[in-house]
Amino acid sequence: MESLALSLGSRAVALLDALALVTDEPGRVTRTYLSTAHARALDLVGDWMRERDLAVTLDAVATLRGRRPADFDPDHARTLLIGSHIDTVIDAGSLDGCLGVVAGLIAAEEIDRRGLKLPFALEILAFGDEEGVRFPTALSSSSAATGTFRREWLAAADRDGVTLDEALRRFGRDPEAIPAARIDPTGVVGWLEVHIEQGPRLEHWDLPLGVVTSIAGQSRFGFTLVGTAGHAGTVPMDLRRDALAGLAEIVLAVERIGRQGTGGLVATVGRVAVSPGAGNTVPGRVEATLDVRAGSDAPRLVAIDRIGHEARRIAERRGLDFTLERFVDVPTCPMDADLQEAFARAVGSLGLDTRRLTSGAGHDAMAMARTMPTAMLFVRSRDGISHNPREWSSPRDIGLAVEALIRCIVDLAEREARPAP
Amino acid sequence: MESLALSLGSRAVALLDALALVTDEPGRVTRTYLSTAHARALDLVGDWMRERDLAVTLDAVATLRGRRPADFDPDHARTLLIGSHIDTVIDAGSLDGCLGVVAGLIAAEEIDRRGLKLPFALEILAFGDEEGVRFPTALSSSSAATGTFRREWLAAADRDGVTLDEALRRFGRDPEAIPAARIDPTGVVGWLEVHIEQGPRLEHWDLPLGVVTSIAGQSRFGFTLVGTAGHAGTVPMDLRRDALAGLAEIVLAVERIGRQGTGGLVATVGRVAVSPGAGNTVPGRVEATLDVRAGSDAPRLVAIDRIGHEARRIAERRGLDFTLERFVDVPTCPMDADLQEAFARAVGSLGLDTRRLTSGAGHDAMAMARTMPTAMLFVRSRDGISHNPREWSSPRDIGLAVEALIRCIVDLAEREARPAP
Repeated sequence: MESLALSLGSRAVALLDALALVTDEPGRVTRTYLSTAHARALDLVGDWMRERDLAVTLDAVATLRGRRPADFDPDHARTLLIGSHIDTVIDAGSLDGCLGVVAGLIAAEEIDRRGLKLPFALEILAFGDEEGVRFPTALSSSSAATGTFRREWLAAADRDGVTLDEALRRFGRDPEAIPAARIDPTGVVGWLEVHIEQGPRLEHWDLPLGVVTSIAGQSRFGFTLVGTAGHAGTVPMDLRRDALAGLAEIVLAVERIGRQGTGGLVATVGRVAVSPGAGNTVPGRVEATLDVRAGSDAPRLVAIDRIGHEARRIAERRGLDFTLERFVDVPTCPMDADLQEAFARAVGSLGLDTRRLTSGAGHDAMAMARTMPTAMLFVRSRDGISHNPREWSSPRDIGLAVEALIRCIVDLAEREARPAP
Repeated sequence: MESLALSLGSRAVALLDALALVTDEPGRVTRTYLSTAHARALDLVGDWMRERDLAVTLDAVATLRGRRPADFDPDHARTLLIGSHIDTVIDAGSLDGCLGVVAGLIAAEEIDRRGLKLPFALEILAFGDEEGVRFPTALSSSSAATGTFRREWLAAADRDGVTLDEALRRFGRDPEAIPAARIDPTGVVGWLEVHIEQGPRLEHWDLPLGVVTSIAGQSRFGFTLVGTAGHAGTVPMDLRRDALAGLAEIVLAVERIGRQGTGGLVATVGRVAVSPGAGNTVPGRVEATLDVRAGSDAPRLVAIDRIGHEARRIAERRGLDFTLERFVDVPTCPMDADLQEAFARAVGSLGLDTRRLTSGAGHDAMAMARTMPTAMLFVRSRDGISHNPREWSSPRDIGLAVEALIRCIVDLAEREARPAP
């Protein structure tokens, strides 16, 4: 198994490294949606698909699709979708997104090499807009694939004022054809996405792979504390209404409630602005953000209630005015139980612990889950780092993920072929 | 007493309001050192001095001095110095500094009007550079008066690149003559400065006046906490090294130690910068300031030790790197005990409580205390507000301060005349 994993992993890494050289910014990996680098990446990945005998198409939002027909009854067979995205953040690593595409390519190649026959078609998808870096959109590529693309997104502009509509046309795509990019879910087995964890848990557990149970629901808030600014020398401690001291109590309450929570609950105060913000002035006003996520909705909603209650109590005791505003509220996206089990059986067959975990970050799988069964396999990230050139997973772990994907496909093929009881 | 106080107060307020109209920025009070408004203010205050038969001089750093000779043996009599500063912060009120000059003028006027005879000269001083707004200097005018002006300050430049040396020359002053601006302390009774409190304590105690025991020593620090930035969704609570959570504990420790302290201890975290500072990112780095002051050095130094110890313990427990750097360390400046008693007797003679308090802010009295006995009388500030157009003290409180100053002068005169036992 070790040598197989290393072999598959090194083949995957070779492709990933080649893709990482396709960038809009020499010296670092930056490949935003519909950029020159995106066009070159489509050429490269398209070549890789054709080398593997996949039938290549490009849809209206520049999602690249490479299809391997079913080996039995291809006219009536369903399709198993595999993939992820090939756009990146600014100054990215080589793995986020691309690993899911490359894993699909190598899996398709190995299925042929091993002479395996499948009762469904395989289609490897390379989405172009998952990171939402260039346009203020979210998962627009995978939304098009599920028929949930919103027409108003076409009016969204990048920082140069180019709208998505215009950028698509310049890229040779036809925005009018976006509805046709929808994949009819009735003919789909499901969506499998291999992705790096982007967090430290698998490393902490000393496990190469983990099966995702759900993509965390997420609530984001802005909150404000208003007290009284004053001279740091002349206002005695007992007459202060120090907004920063109120924030300090709230930050610790958020941390405590986050730690006590279940279901992968995380709660974060990430951005803080203190006014007037002078060393010799008691802070009169603080603005901050609160981000709460969990693998299911109940612990998240309970935590939000508790944090709001605690924060109001703290503010009241300190004579501070407190306001809280919700900006984002995305419900938990559970992964399909059967596909999770298929991934878990594949991981178990490699002699590995089949640990389940929540995804704290969003993925294309969130959009795909709107219309079809969906599952994700996570690969251990070194130091939990992502969105950063230091993003790294070992070739061995990557190879184990590819082999688990292959075994999952075979597992699903056996079940697909078997008549309903 | 009420009608006397209101009468004295309204006369003072009339002068203060007239002075507040002398500004570099129409519509708000801004009068920085050696500006056009400063020149006009010197003309106005000089006229007021001459109207009160004071002999007017302007020293090398543009400090205006109005002298009333002693009524007995004027060639051998000592001098009692009274005053404060007439420069302001940007968008100031009418009282900070100016009150001390105007109180001296009205006291001199009243002494003549009441036919009182003094065994010492009175000299009313109007300093030009207390706020340090235009040049990066500190108390340069009163330092010149005590012979502690530093020559290197002449090279300090304002934001237009004009040096203090050049600005003084343009103002018709001779920097070479600064040593001659020194007032020989052997011939001085002391320095009396009436000033608004700029804090909320007298208001809190419902008292119009307070006698200053000392000007708080002050230590200022910058400190940094470094943890690990991470994705707010993917890094579980128990694997975080959240620099903001560490700061929160330190802010509360600073507050607790400040509250437990004695001797007017105040401790403030006023400026905070959180990095990366994104709502979806666990804070990896925090930079903040710490300001600690007290009416005597021991409680301040004890508090600094305790805060440093606590902060290190918090950082260690959380696995954060902690660094602390001291930027400012000014020792406590005690006021003269005899002059404090003289002010206290005067306040008591008005039927008022003689409450003592520390000054948390710095004043010209700090420089004067380097060479001579010094005392300050504080006047209640509405809402503790200063350095702001909303700065206000009632005409009655101001009048009580002027009357207390007059009675303090008379008290000192009686003691000056009495031969040593």
